[in-house]
Amino acid sequence: MANTIPGGVCAPIGFTASGIRCGIKKSATKDDLALIVSETGCAAAAVYTQNKVKGAPIEVTREHIADGTARALLCNSGNANTCNADGEEKARMMCAAAAHALGLKDSDIIVASTGVIGQPLPIEPILSGMQPLVEALSKDGSAKACGAIMTTDLRPKEIAVSFTLSGRECRLGGIAKGSGMIHPNMATMLAFLTTDAAISPAMLHKALLSVTRDSFNMVSVDGDTSTNDMAAILANGMAGNPEITAEGPEYDAFVDALSAVCTHLAREMARDGEGATKLLECTVTGAPDADTAKAVAKSVITSSLFKAAMFGQDANWGRILCAVGYAPAEFDIGKVAVALSSKAGAVKVCALGSGIPFSEEEAAKVLAESEIIIAVDLGQGSAAATAWGCDLTYDYVKINGDYRT
Amino acid sequence: MANTIPGGVCAPIGFTASGIRCGIKKSATKDDLALIVSETGCAAAAVYTQNKVKGAPIEVTREHIADGTARALLCNSGNANTCNADGEEKARMMCAAAAHALGLKDSDIIVASTGVIGQPLPIEPILSGMQPLVEALSKDGSAKACGAIMTTDLRPKEIAVSFTLSGRECRLGGIAKGSGMIHPNMATMLAFLTTDAAISPAMLHKALLSVTRDSFNMVSVDGDTSTNDMAAILANGMAGNPEITAEGPEYDAFVDALSAVCTHLAREMARDGEGATKLLECTVTGAPDADTAKAVAKSVITSSLFKAAMFGQDANWGRILCAVGYAPAEFDIGKVAVALSSKAGAVKVCALGSGIPFSEEEAAKVLAESEIIIAVDLGQGSAAATAWGCDLTYDYVKINGDYRT
Repeated sequence: MANTIPGGVCAPIGFTASGIRCGIKKSATKDDLALIVSETGCAAAAVYTQNKVKGAPIEVTREHIADGTARALLCNSGNANTCNADGEEKARMMCAAAAHALGLKDSDIIVASTGVIGQPLPIEPILSGMQPLVEALSKDGSAKACGAIMTTDLRPKEIAVSFTLSGRECRLGGIAKGSGMIHPNMATMLAFLTTDAAISPAMLHKALLSVTRDSFNMVSVDGDTSTNDMAAILANGMAGNPEITAEGPEYDAFVDALSAVCTHLAREMARDGEGATKLLECTVTGAPDADTAKAVAKSVITSSLFKAAMFGQDANWGRILCAVGYAPAEFDIGKVAVALSSKAGAVKVCALGSGIPFSEEEAAKVLAESEIIIAVDLGQGSAAATAWGCDLTYDYVKINGDYRT
Repeated sequence: MANTIPGGVCAPIGFTASGIRCGIKKSATKDDLALIVSETGCAAAAVYTQNKVKGAPIEVTREHIADGTARALLCNSGNANTCNADGEEKARMMCAAAAHALGLKDSDIIVASTGVIGQPLPIEPILSGMQPLVEALSKDGSAKACGAIMTTDLRPKEIAVSFTLSGRECRLGGIAKGSGMIHPNMATMLAFLTTDAAISPAMLHKALLSVTRDSFNMVSVDGDTSTNDMAAILANGMAGNPEITAEGPEYDAFVDALSAVCTHLAREMARDGEGATKLLECTVTGAPDADTAKAVAKSVITSSLFKAAMFGQDANWGRILCAVGYAPAEFDIGKVAVALSSKAGAVKVCALGSGIPFSEEEAAKVLAESEIIIAVDLGQGSAAATAWGCDLTYDYVKINGDYRT
């Protein structure tokens, strides 16, 4: 089992990070430029949005890690550098500036951007901010980097764990941002991960793909798949374990640690969804296969009607069953059971596809909590899946009715 | 071309309708039971929700029109009669009561319900209301029937047209309800259509399927496909035209009239979406094929982020391009152009997949109107499609955060 430790992306040996305000965001207090650097070369892997509209940084990053290696991660917030004619050119300028200041090659840099789509990226603040950003790099810098990638996020999302590979203690850390336009497909808004475990680029990519499917890809805030989603990981091998180059117990232990970090960040992303007051966790069990379980869990977590009912603390379970019913999968709806639970208790609301009597008073108590579990038992198999989302609130409308101004 | 005429579902010869308050809804003023009757036998067709959870009335209606004929339509609001163990039994009791009061067979009755899911349907008010409902039938009854099928709808949705088949004047009328849980798939919330044209059951079904795909199925209020969607049509042949039994100019003229009625009702459903302040119409042109055009139009109209931006009258076109980009279809995003228009003017915001300079002042004027057209030109073919939706507002959250109480 992985143990939670402090330090975020700087917990692994050899990583430093920093975050500063360079001036892309209008706010005079919010940081908008983040950097994570390894003191030695790293195996690198990333997964990206499936949206046809792709942020310019994604193309550049894909090119830079084509050889499976990288050394640093640079990210600005406040502007997505997407749908701009000069976007790729500016993403390359960002990499060149970071490489120059760090004494690295351009292709050592993973670059990302997040913020408004379709407005030209102001490059000057980034160029003039590069030197201060590099000077601010420190072992305590994870929280600053985490703060500088936030947009409408209210809570930082940061974690690290320690685990053992071949008798050597290894560490794996991550930071992430989410909040709006969150419905990842093969990647997520932004998640940056570091580890001092030694693992080959191919196995690192395999592990990231596999873990992403059950963590970030199971989150939805609003059903909108962003243009700039990216989850990237750097592994510098400084823990000294024998390099993982194939499947086996060491690979499994690495995947477990990666899964612990990504699942934590995914849950935090859902909890901090734009305007959210509640974290919703839908667990589907008894499914004929994993794809069906996932489809049902995501369908529930994505339903606007259900999300609004959770905001209203209304045990309107018919909306849950409705969302189960339109999930793109084949199963018998007549075997489905549904229960709602939280730390205040549990209430069964539906069995064999029909309503069962329950205490509205008890249900109200359960739904007054800030973490709600919606347990859907399909009753026709043994596959399971979990998805995370949040309630739909007045503040979501407020935030998104007036985002650019 | 079809001409709009008054009378709704009673405009065609031989149809009467009524609506009363029988007592299913708590409100002391809202009607909740509707009836439409033809004085002679009718060809009948219906399309239904694709949700695996299906309202009990749908099973009963499917059985009753299996022979392609019916005479009357009975519908209650305030309770969906869905996910109840005794749902089918009660739907049959509704048909039996109506058939008895009208002197018809049970299988002459199309039955529908709309309202809360998963609460037992109180059958007594319906049984005791049947005699007054039948007594209230009149040639002026369409508006009353339309009012009695409404739930959170604020505006009645009613229309009729006249058209010519083989030199005989025919009429086609319809009423509908929408408002929430509206994202129809092969059918819609509720739309009841009548015509005095003579047309065989097979051709009637074919026409309804074909028109539904481009009208009701292109509406989305909140992405939630209801359990009780139904569009049903009765054709009594009293106009005296030679029965349509095959494709040809007369069938095409009938489809045109049906399309005019269904498109009007679909637009009204979107305009009256829960909490909506604006009707959004997304027209996609230049698509390689019709499926791509439809997928893109629905993707835009369904995006929560885009809908919230329209509520805020914010020309945040990046969200439109984002939704275009994640539509489930294959095309080149680099050729896409986007313009926003309303009766206040038109503003081009994007060309060749990138932003172009535009006047925010002019855009604000365009978006201040209550009907907004989002024109997406994919620039890579000649197929087109139109979808309708509405903005996402505080009131949507308010209505759905507290629906049952």
